[in-house]
Amino acid sequence: MSPAAFAPMFERVALIGLGLIGSSLSHAMRRRGLAGHIVGHARSQATCDKALEIGLIEQAYGSAREAAVGADLIILCVPVGACDAIAAEIGPVLTPGAILTDVGSVKTAVALAVQPHVPAGVHFIPGHPIAGTEHSGPESGFAELFDGRWTILTPPSGTDAGAVAKLRAFWEACGSAVEIMTAEHHDMVLAITSHVPHLIAYNIVGTADDLQSVTQAEVIKFSAGGFRDFTRIAASDPVMWRDVFLNNKDAVLEMLARFNEDLSRLQRAIRWGDGPALEEFFTRTRAIRRGILQAGQDTAGGEFYRARAGKDGGEPGKSGQ
Amino acid sequence: MSPAAFAPMFERVALIGLGLIGSSLSHAMRRRGLAGHIVGHARSQATCDKALEIGLIEQAYGSAREAAVGADLIILCVPVGACDAIAAEIGPVLTPGAILTDVGSVKTAVALAVQPHVPAGVHFIPGHPIAGTEHSGPESGFAELFDGRWTILTPPSGTDAGAVAKLRAFWEACGSAVEIMTAEHHDMVLAITSHVPHLIAYNIVGTADDLQSVTQAEVIKFSAGGFRDFTRIAASDPVMWRDVFLNNKDAVLEMLARFNEDLSRLQRAIRWGDGPALEEFFTRTRAIRRGILQAGQDTAGGEFYRARAGKDGGEPGKSGQ
Repeated sequence: MSPAAFAPMFERVALIGLGLIGSSLSHAMRRRGLAGHIVGHARSQATCDKALEIGLIEQAYGSAREAAVGADLIILCVPVGACDAIAAEIGPVLTPGAILTDVGSVKTAVALAVQPHVPAGVHFIPGHPIAGTEHSGPESGFAELFDGRWTILTPPSGTDAGAVAKLRAFWEACGSAVEIMTAEHHDMVLAITSHVPHLIAYNIVGTADDLQSVTQAEVIKFSAGGFRDFTRIAASDPVMWRDVFLNNKDAVLEMLARFNEDLSRLQRAIRWGDGPALEEFFTRTRAIRRGILQAGQDTAGGEFYRARAGKDGGEPGKSGQ
Repeated sequence: MSPAAFAPMFERVALIGLGLIGSSLSHAMRRRGLAGHIVGHARSQATCDKALEIGLIEQAYGSAREAAVGADLIILCVPVGACDAIAAEIGPVLTPGAILTDVGSVKTAVALAVQPHVPAGVHFIPGHPIAGTEHSGPESGFAELFDGRWTILTPPSGTDAGAVAKLRAFWEACGSAVEIMTAEHHDMVLAITSHVPHLIAYNIVGTADDLQSVTQAEVIKFSAGGFRDFTRIAASDPVMWRDVFLNNKDAVLEMLARFNEDLSRLQRAIRWGDGPALEEFFTRTRAIRRGILQAGQDTAGGEFYRARAGKDGGEPGKSGQ
């Protein structure tokens, strides 16, 4: 680990899980010297070996419990469905004063699963960085992943204010801005901004894959018409997303019902040739896009980068990758 | 116009419509000296003025008919629904031997609308470059838009082979690869790769906009979780998309029905907590993404560009645009 010029925020950070988020956290912590020592655990030996090789962690442990011993910050970077068992395993070795947090895309279910295993004096503060790519594994991380993004913390009522402030400062030092809300509200916000979009992206990619009248080669060739934006998010980690949908069922089904009602209305407008209704609807949605650009949450130049990348890649269908 | 070192492919090209595609075509033609003269017409005087000012065209005409006089290549770069009236207007002045084409996202309806107005000896070859951004207007174009993308031509049976070969060479010189298919097949392929993806993107942005439990500010702030990819395509030109759905009704409704069936199955798996079914489905869709990257139709680094752009833009919610 590179020594920090000033005292690190945490003496010993344990990363449980070394995929995209865990590895990016390691890069972000080392960028600013936030941790005295970074140790970790991953379920697969290959991941542990790779993490040691590329310097993500100083030491790899064979179990989450061993990794958590003596840590003053423990971050669960595993699929939401794995948090329960890991909390049960590490609970007994957590030290009073330590902060336990996670990075899962669902907060209510995680809080319910983890809280019973947290000993008195340990500060459990669920968290969720709204950042990601469609890549997975220890080599997919990079220090800038959280820069300019938001991290949501959902401390249960009664959580120690000092611990919350410290975790907030940690995420800010990792490059993120921080917002605090209830777990229930988080799950509703994410259902519409992330979970349902992923579900319908997965769904349309599946629909295209099943077609007989249009070949898969054609779907791929002509994907620049819009489809490729869906495939990117439909390429995300399957286990992570399985757990999201199993653990945020109510909010997802509620948002999906609204989505379906609205889609039926558009479908009807198409069937009946209601041009004015379609145009009015498509005009309204432009305003939200402007809001996102103004908030710095996306860049306007996406297609241009792609056009240039395509140019470098040579003729369509002939460039390797 | 910059003089070409060799004879241009066409002596006089008339661009009817000077939005994203029309202006990009002008840039692409001038990049390689493909046209002796480029002239044009746009419905609004402001667009004509801007096009002259930035050098997209040599001369702007007050009507499509005047612009088409004497042209050996006429390209309709207008919403699909406008092609009928423009063809009726320009038909009488088209010269035998000239090529008439368009760039619309629907081909069957356009061919039916335009063909009756095409005089004998004029080669009418419908076309569609699969390229675009969410921006519109004469200043949104750039020469690289078609580089590494596909253009589909749908010549009716009996079309002159020499004219098809010439138009193919033109699009290739504009940077695009070319594929030839029937108008009916084009409309089916585009329904699944472009039209339905746009419809559901518009739809989910609308659903989010209507929520009372989640504010629009929250939707915007936390859009990096997936939602922003939908807003980009839901920011496309409303009139163009209205016309697409009105003119490719059958294929869109057919694909939408399949999409809905598939979504119901996923919805049911979530409601009943069927983890294995969800994981299996999410795993299958990854393969298509790999195909798109291998075909050079997208880049793997989208998020990284965004992360860096976000970094340059400063704190979330605080950066202007």
